[in-house]
Amino acid sequence: MDAESAVVSPLPGALQARLAAARAAARALRRLDVATRRAVLHDAARRLVEQGGAVLAENAADLAAHDALGESGRGPAFRDRLLLDAARLGRMGEGLRQVAAMDDPVGEVVEARTLANGLRLRRVRSPLGVILLIFESRPDVAVEAFSLAFMAGNALVLRGGRESMHTTAALYRLLGEALAAHRVPDGALLGITDPDRGLTRALLADDRSIDVVVPRGGPGLIEFVVEHARMPVIKNDRGLCHVYVHDDADLAMAVSIVDNAKTQRPGVCNAMETLLVHRAVAARLLPALHERISGPARAAPVRWFADGEVRAALPGRPHVEPATEGSFDTEYLDLALSARVVPDLSAAIDHIERHGSRHSECIVTASDEAARRFQEEVDAACVYRNASTRFTDGFSLGLGGELGISTQKLHVRGPVGLQALTSVRWVFDGDGQCR
Amino acid sequence: MDAESAVVSPLPGALQARLAAARAAARALRRLDVATRRAVLHDAARRLVEQGGAVLAENAADLAAHDALGESGRGPAFRDRLLLDAARLGRMGEGLRQVAAMDDPVGEVVEARTLANGLRLRRVRSPLGVILLIFESRPDVAVEAFSLAFMAGNALVLRGGRESMHTTAALYRLLGEALAAHRVPDGALLGITDPDRGLTRALLADDRSIDVVVPRGGPGLIEFVVEHARMPVIKNDRGLCHVYVHDDADLAMAVSIVDNAKTQRPGVCNAMETLLVHRAVAARLLPALHERISGPARAAPVRWFADGEVRAALPGRPHVEPATEGSFDTEYLDLALSARVVPDLSAAIDHIERHGSRHSECIVTASDEAARRFQEEVDAACVYRNASTRFTDGFSLGLGGELGISTQKLHVRGPVGLQALTSVRWVFDGDGQCR
Repeated sequence: MDAESAVVSPLPGALQARLAAARAAARALRRLDVATRRAVLHDAARRLVEQGGAVLAENAADLAAHDALGESGRGPAFRDRLLLDAARLGRMGEGLRQVAAMDDPVGEVVEARTLANGLRLRRVRSPLGVILLIFESRPDVAVEAFSLAFMAGNALVLRGGRESMHTTAALYRLLGEALAAHRVPDGALLGITDPDRGLTRALLADDRSIDVVVPRGGPGLIEFVVEHARMPVIKNDRGLCHVYVHDDADLAMAVSIVDNAKTQRPGVCNAMETLLVHRAVAARLLPALHERISGPARAAPVRWFADGEVRAALPGRPHVEPATEGSFDTEYLDLALSARVVPDLSAAIDHIERHGSRHSECIVTASDEAARRFQEEVDAACVYRNASTRFTDGFSLGLGGELGISTQKLHVRGPVGLQALTSVRWVFDGDGQCR
Repeated sequence: MDAESAVVSPLPGALQARLAAARAAARALRRLDVATRRAVLHDAARRLVEQGGAVLAENAADLAAHDALGESGRGPAFRDRLLLDAARLGRMGEGLRQVAAMDDPVGEVVEARTLANGLRLRRVRSPLGVILLIFESRPDVAVEAFSLAFMAGNALVLRGGRESMHTTAALYRLLGEALAAHRVPDGALLGITDPDRGLTRALLADDRSIDVVVPRGGPGLIEFVVEHARMPVIKNDRGLCHVYVHDDADLAMAVSIVDNAKTQRPGVCNAMETLLVHRAVAARLLPALHERISGPARAAPVRWFADGEVRAALPGRPHVEPATEGSFDTEYLDLALSARVVPDLSAAIDHIERHGSRHSECIVTASDEAARRFQEEVDAACVYRNASTRFTDGFSLGLGGELGISTQKLHVRGPVGLQALTSVRWVFDGDGQCR
């Protein structure tokens, strides 16, 4: 933080007016019936089909702008995240319909009781209000976020990356039409496509208009939001996930789980980054595992950054390098892993306590006692016994999608689904009770 | 915020070591059995009786330091908050025993189900970790906060006002002895009595050591914490609470509720500040209400800051002044209120939406429909029908005390009790499931 960044420019008047409209819409949404909310989502899904060509044309403009950058562009992985096609549009529509089919979280009575003085109280699930989502360049995030925020009765402010500006503008128009068709105030969705970066800082200062901010992107974005947001943040931080193989593990199962957690989709936050192996099984497990994920049968072998004991168990094997000081704090998001031998369960838990990001952690063991200790003592959003860390996502867990994976401890841990976009109020009915 | 305040001094080495001890203690507390947690709280309650004289002697030192300031001191209300006596020590001990008697929140299974792939999942309530409470000068807050944080399995860092430094130091020693007697790591309670104000800023930057911060004090403290904290904040902001009297209200009940909400303890955040009256009942309600709370029978009459219609209903009455532009945004915390006539329920809700602080709001009405609309549309932590707003506190609602009243929407709204000091993790048991 420096002196310059401490100066927050005011929001332009037009944006202030739209934020006021978002607040007014949030108030209207609190009492919008669930049938209308579901109808809007189905309507948006239908428009995605009908207007798919127009959306893809705008997407082509974004892709062309990216491609025009040539070598100074952000690379093929980035381009792939930007890209929409008929299949991806289809999945977006399917997502809208899935969220529309979920139970309505609004109005759920979480607890009801009567106090000794006769006061009847209910704790009632209610919308959060106005949610700001700041995301990078995957345009499908806009639709998924809208579906969840709207189904939970919230107004949503979307601030996407400039690289997908044309695509998101088309999606905002389409969603706006779906809202208008059901006479929902258009403040329910405020899509900001103005590329001025100062706007983000000004939005983060406006805790009168915005109740919660959710940043979704790389470490630079997260850091910026944590530094500057005045409203509460639902933080989706990095996933430095571990698999620990205990001395009594079914080793074939361990090989499958590590393979899946590391290689099935290495670029996502719930992929494994570090392997911890109990000393007693290192010599048996490691060669078989290396054969599976780094052997000649693999077109794309996994690179190992391994401590001395791991390397000793893999003499002469390719793709194995010494771990450095920073290896165990590295989120590769790639076909690479760190590996270390540990003397016992406690050392594994210690390692995770020191290096983990509190996202998803796994123990492979046949012992109920070891699993119980690991599950109790490891401080992470999701703790697995004998299953891949890859299940940490809103669809896998039946939440109908997610706004991200929370690695903080307040409000929500793990996938941020529909319920996490609500809060619980106290509602009282009395007969004149006083203290 | 200015450039100078952007420079965060590093924490002194000794404090860094104690924060590391707090983190280690938090890990040990995750698996500390509830019987030991309860025993520590009972032990502390016993020590409060046995060592009460020593605590009161230290409190006398704080009071003497305050009194020595004479006219430049912070006044009698402040002195009263600083003061401990045998009765207050007794209530602190009673509070410890009440929290010890509560159900253990740690380990509670909030949800359990099996996914289609056979993966069994449980959502399990778990401690937050290390909580930082920053409070002003009421020393009993230290004991209440410790009881709740510890019972929920958390380590607690306490940073109190310098005016109660001797008293809190004595209480920290006493609580530390109770922990030591049951072999709980002393990092479970870190009481900071060093008066250096820069420490607070450095603590707020240390989101590696501290999971959550709870500020408890005036607007200046809250603003400082919201501005500088890198970790999530549970915000206990001001209470600008309204009572709205609808056109069909039982007027005798309305008088009782307004009297209680305004005068029973005006200095607390759940007291009423603004009265809204439906036009149809203004002429009947207001004279009777004025007689009750501002009439000659009252030794300490309530002052009114009233709009023209209210004043018209109270011709010639004493203690009635015109409301100014700022009246309806004023938290008096005193025997004063703002009053306004509104044409209907919608106008009352609009007023609360614009001026309320999302704390506690009340409607007095005989109509289920009006109550339902008010309870659905008013966006506050606690919404009452026909009962005083004074019930918004942890003891009244059976939470065994509270760390404050949250007016934000994330994590917890209303009284911050035992459950709000936990988070919910996902725990999975599989048989080798992969994606």
